[in-house]
Amino acid sequence: MYNPVEIILKKRSGQELTPAEMTFMVSGFIAGEVPEYQMSAFLMAIFFQGMTKSEIVELTRIYIESGSQIKFPEGLQTCDKHSTGGVGDKITMTLAPIVAACGAYIPMISGRGLGHTGGTLDKLESIPGFDTYMTEEYFVASVLERRLAIIAQSKALVPADKKIYALRDVTATVESLPLITASIMSKKIAEGARNLVIDLKVGSGAFMKTMDDARKLAELLKHTGESFGQKVSVIFTQMESPLGFAIGNAMEIKESIGYLKGAHIPDIDQITKALAVEMLMQTGIATSKDEALQKIAEVIENRAALQQFKDLIQLHKGNPAVCDDTSLLPEAKYVLPIKSDKEGYINSIDSQKIGYALIKIGAGRVTLDSPLDMGAGAYLYKKIGDQINLSEEIGQLHTNNIALGQAVVQEINDAMTASSNKPETKPLILGKRAKYVFCGLISFTV
Amino acid sequence: MYNPVEIILKKRSGQELTPAEMTFMVSGFIAGEVPEYQMSAFLMAIFFQGMTKSEIVELTRIYIESGSQIKFPEGLQTCDKHSTGGVGDKITMTLAPIVAACGAYIPMISGRGLGHTGGTLDKLESIPGFDTYMTEEYFVASVLERRLAIIAQSKALVPADKKIYALRDVTATVESLPLITASIMSKKIAEGARNLVIDLKVGSGAFMKTMDDARKLAELLKHTGESFGQKVSVIFTQMESPLGFAIGNAMEIKESIGYLKGAHIPDIDQITKALAVEMLMQTGIATSKDEALQKIAEVIENRAALQQFKDLIQLHKGNPAVCDDTSLLPEAKYVLPIKSDKEGYINSIDSQKIGYALIKIGAGRVTLDSPLDMGAGAYLYKKIGDQINLSEEIGQLHTNNIALGQAVVQEINDAMTASSNKPETKPLILGKRAKYVFCGLISFTV
Repeated sequence: MYNPVEIILKKRSGQELTPAEMTFMVSGFIAGEVPEYQMSAFLMAIFFQGMTKSEIVELTRIYIESGSQIKFPEGLQTCDKHSTGGVGDKITMTLAPIVAACGAYIPMISGRGLGHTGGTLDKLESIPGFDTYMTEEYFVASVLERRLAIIAQSKALVPADKKIYALRDVTATVESLPLITASIMSKKIAEGARNLVIDLKVGSGAFMKTMDDARKLAELLKHTGESFGQKVSVIFTQMESPLGFAIGNAMEIKESIGYLKGAHIPDIDQITKALAVEMLMQTGIATSKDEALQKIAEVIENRAALQQFKDLIQLHKGNPAVCDDTSLLPEAKYVLPIKSDKEGYINSIDSQKIGYALIKIGAGRVTLDSPLDMGAGAYLYKKIGDQINLSEEIGQLHTNNIALGQAVVQEINDAMTASSNKPETKPLILGKRAKYVFCGLISFTV
Repeated sequence: MYNPVEIILKKRSGQELTPAEMTFMVSGFIAGEVPEYQMSAFLMAIFFQGMTKSEIVELTRIYIESGSQIKFPEGLQTCDKHSTGGVGDKITMTLAPIVAACGAYIPMISGRGLGHTGGTLDKLESIPGFDTYMTEEYFVASVLERRLAIIAQSKALVPADKKIYALRDVTATVESLPLITASIMSKKIAEGARNLVIDLKVGSGAFMKTMDDARKLAELLKHTGESFGQKVSVIFTQMESPLGFAIGNAMEIKESIGYLKGAHIPDIDQITKALAVEMLMQTGIATSKDEALQKIAEVIENRAALQQFKDLIQLHKGNPAVCDDTSLLPEAKYVLPIKSDKEGYINSIDSQKIGYALIKIGAGRVTLDSPLDMGAGAYLYKKIGDQINLSEEIGQLHTNNIALGQAVVQEINDAMTASSNKPETKPLILGKRAKYVFCGLISFTV
């Protein structure tokens, strides 16, 4: 029999724990045998000492085995995407319908927004009637029949991660690469995805501020997935400023529908296609980048991707008519112009600051209990490198509260800097971590 | 208002906390407003990031102010000694009566044994009738009248330390120099000692394994005491092998009485005198080392120190006749000879191993609830550098359980190594950390 104190001590001194010790500690905590105060000290020791790759795989296994696992028929090349989160990140809504329309099976479990970043579930729930709850059996049947379903994490799936995440959240132990890895990968493995593309955001608006940290996390995610027989590709994408033009739940759905109808949104287009190509090649639906890009262009052009999104909405009891008439989506009562208080070339847009500012008008939440205002949000017409004039309308704020909205307009202005010289812009796709080399400036081959 | 998560995060990232933040966290925990799981994550963050001297002083202040403080008349040069703990460390029993007999006032709060080291309270309680409980009022009156009283930490004194120590004990956060400093110093300040000599044990049998760590702890202890107006000297003493010849509660009392009657026990004599000289000079009872040594020799010679020990026993309702007839002390039923299983010069004696071995026959305890066998223990006649022959009787084991006793005899043999060449022996007094230079090879001057 083990003693929790000895296990904490071992981790504290940087030694590798055996699978039996990991199980004793983590499963013991889930079973209520190891108290919270010992688990939190253990988590903080992990924060400082890290974990070996074997320990991370073991932790992921314990997480997965703490609940049920979704199984798809043998040989079915299910696939999914995970994003580490960014402001204005609506890529799931543009990517998943396209890839499904090309023939892929996507069993997707998504999360809610917290802090400055939004969540896919919240965005989808802005569609009238959309219900993200499904039994596991219905989820499997839906994916097999419709090729795409997006649900919330159920209580039956990786409950260990849920319980430990709640403790990490209140003990300042969230920002640990090994713990993040086990948390992400356990869900993505338990949901039955045999292929996974990870959109790893890097930059001032992302959790990973530097490529160095991002590379470390990528290595851990990839190694862990592959230990469970999952094919994993990581694409590093820039998160220095918000993605697309819209930020806010219904506003981002509207923008996604626009994209699926053929609207040109440069950054959304670039990232959507990079991830879609990867997913189509992972699953063998395309054998080359060119073939993949052609298929993608086709399903947008012939509206098959839009139809796939309508099917998804219908499957989840939502109103698919929003795709034809976006005014059926929730809209805020007031639209305030955002007028620039500076001039020159936009040098930086602090998306984290903007994300936090928008929480005030209900476009995001501080705690999981905070109510959302589905119609609230902002359009920002300008990107880094664009020229702006004093008092030029550079965006719109959609709000149900004028006073709060005016304060947010100021904060959005404060979140932007301008300079007299046009700044160099960074590429959007920063590189890839996969078995073969693809897009981007920097490539990391295993 | 503060948020515990932000405070943990600040400490986790190595920033200094403000007094208000420290108070919010620590006093909040004591009041039951900050939960254990946040406190334990905070303690682990402190383990890794340390604390600044100001934070330690602040933590000590919070500890002290969490309970009552003992006050002695202004100008009274009360003094005390603290030892960081070692095997066979009965120095309190030899030192305190000598210093009190020389005229010093000693209000002493002592602890119990845990793990491989014994505790002064346990040793004193082996004297029939000895009661370490006293009200604070009676304690103050006793010190003023009899110059020496030794009590257990009451619930009223530094309760914060007690509550936090209990949490550290089960979360592997004991071994933190800042937390150790606040824990020791809060008690030594709250008990009303205006002068303090710290016997800081260094070596394989001590908590501090190296002089480097010991120096760091000394610096923190001294700075903290002096911030509260206390005079603090630190003497570094070697703890590579057990102190004196006896290990075990009643057996150590017997040895101490022997010393106070004039028996020559080289290591006990050297440490007792080094600490006594320091205490007499701190309190102004002696103005030079020579004068101090002369006074010490006198009170041993004229039995004033032994009388002081008898007074102490009487004050605590014990039977002072044990000083004249040590057979009144508890004795084990069986005495097993410890015969050497090796020959040559003793190279090392692992006092930690011996301490843990003796727990099996009740001479020490693993948890504070473990029962003690007051008569159990060992005599070890030999010291590092002594020559031993195969099968020579090198000690005795006193036990009430022959089978367990025989196993312990073997473990004691296993704890010793011998070599064919006489090893160099280290000095017993390793140095001092005080405002002026005194004994020993190494001196550290502030």
